Parts: sequence; structure tokens; C-alpha cells
Amino acid sequence: MKVLLIHSDYLEFEAKQKTKIAEDTDILNGKMDECLTAFMAVEKEDEENPENVIKNTVDEIVKTAENLKVKNIVVYPYAHLSSELSSPKVAKDVLKGIEEYLKERDYNVLRAPFGWYKAFKISCKGHPLSELSRKITADKGEKEGKEIEKEEAKNEEKS
Amino acid sequence: MKVLLIHSDYLEFEAKQKTKIAEDTDILNGKMDECLTAFMAVEKEDEENPENVIKNTVDEIVKTAENLKVKNIVVYPYAHLSSELSSPKVAKDVLKGIEEYLKERDYNVLRAPFGWYKAFKISCKGHPLSELSRKITADKGEKEGKEIEKEEAKNEEKS
Ligand SMILES: [Mg+2]
Repeated sequence: MKVLLIHSDYLEFEAKQKTKIAEDTDILNGKMDECLTAFMAVEKEDEENPENVIKNTVDEIVKTAENLKVKNIVVYPYAHLSSELSSPKVAKDVLKGIEEYLKERDYNVLRAPFGWYKAFKISCKGHPLSELSRKITADKGEKEGKEIEKEEAKNEEKS
Repeated sequence: MKVLLIHSDYLEFEAKQKTKIAEDTDILNGKMDECLTAFMAVEKEDEENPENVIKNTVDEIVKTAENLKVKNIVVYPYAHLSSELSSPKVAKDVLKGIEEYLKERDYNVLRAPFGWYKAFKISCKGHPLSELSRKITADKGEKEGKEIEKEEAKNEEKS
């Protein structure tokens, strides 16, 4: 699971067109203010233990949301974060699972539909903790590469 | 080199805070309308032949810009696209090289500064060709993974 978390003034989307694997949904557009936007790509390796991936991803999102004192979360499928994607079926199950589990933990959740071409607008706040990326496995949430050192280098190089 | 290309109604940024590797610049904010936004991460392997990476990346950007009939391009450093980043020095040289080479090919270019925490706003148009990701090497521009089949799967799964 690859996740890109963006502390956002707002995230707004509008589903424009179905792909062959589009989920059936009535939620074709939506907007959330003062939110943590979680762009996510469910990966092939996540198929082995989707339940753990859901749990560990939610733990990572919640940790960041608590740091930022944010109660609004956008779950946004974003295949471009990985070149080793899971099957569409697993991806949909995992994304829906994350939505449900976040709601159980009392977050307001807006989930953008899977498998649609969508227009979107986002405003990233730009403070040092407003953009974070994570690789998450069934074993545990872990930072990309060599934990802390890598994360620091990334923060320094980030745009 | 990882590139995420977004056909955008606009891209706007404001540099908020330096990191230790920030480039010196007077361009601390900017906005471009009706543009192709190129989010980019220069990678370790690009250090071997930066000149070719610059050339191949520009070729990929230009191909997409021509398809979309866009003359405005935003070059935006985005470390979160890779976990194998190049040195900051090479990254800055490559990004500046891409800017110069695009200008030589008569594109209007806005380059966001490297190594700063930045706020940004973007609006993605949402049509089927409005979001594309590429892995580019010194040898040639290539699509992620298994070329065409992979790209089609990606378009179908994309959000
Ligand atoms: Mg428009």
C-alpha cells in the first residue's frame, strides 16, 4: 500500500467518466474542507492479507490526523503511486474497509469512487508536515526505505 | 526519473519555508493557467547520465503537451514519487535543464523551486488523458512496467 497524505484546505472531485472497472456509486462528486487527503494505491502484495493492510493504513492515517488535529479525511484512490497494483476487486474492498474503519474511529470520511476518471481540485497547506508519503505492509506501517534518516532526507528534498 | 503529468486548469504555488538543500531563488510564488503540470522526482540512477534523462523527459512531456495542445508547462519537484532519490545537486541540475530545454522548444515554463516547503493549488481536468505517470531512464522514455498492457490497466484502475 502506497499512501500520500496531504493536509489540505480543501479537496473537491467530480467523477467524469467510467472505466471498465468502475465501482457502482451515487457519489459522483464531493467536497471536504480542512481535511487530510489520503491518495492511495493498493498493491499486489496487499492481496495476501487485506485486513491487516486496512488496519495498518488506518493507524498511519489516524496518527497523522491526530498530529494535525484534523477530523475530516478524504480517501482518494490513486493508481499512479505504484507500478505493482492489486486486482481491482481487492483495491475496492480495501478502500471501502479503510472508509468504514475510519468512520468507526469517529472521523468524517469522504471516499472518492474507484475506477472513474475524475476531475479534482486540491489546496495543500505547505507547512513542513503537510505532505507525507508512506509504504504500508500487512506486517506494519513503515516509512519508505530506511525509516527516519530517509524521511528527513525526503523532507529536505521535497518540493 | 518518475514523472506525473496532470492536465490542469491551473497550478499555483507559494514557497513557505526553506529546507537545508533549498535552491536560491527569487521566484517564491507563481501561477499558470491551462497547463500541463509535471510533478517530478529525479532518481539515483539518473546520476549516471543526467543529460540523456533531461532529453528523454522533455521528449515525453512534449509528446503529451502536443496531444493535449498545451503550450504552458509547470516543472514541479515532487520527491514523494520515488523512494530512490538522486542527490540534491543532480536533482537541481536536471530540473533546471528540463526548464531550459522546454523553453528552447518554445514552451512557456514555470518552474517551482527545489527544496522548499510549498503550498500549492491544482485543478485536474479529469478527462481520460489528464493524468499520466511515466518512468523515464537515460536509455529511453518508457511506460511504467509492461508498456501498453500495464498502461491500460492503470487507466482503468486510476481514480
Ligand atoms: Mg475547466
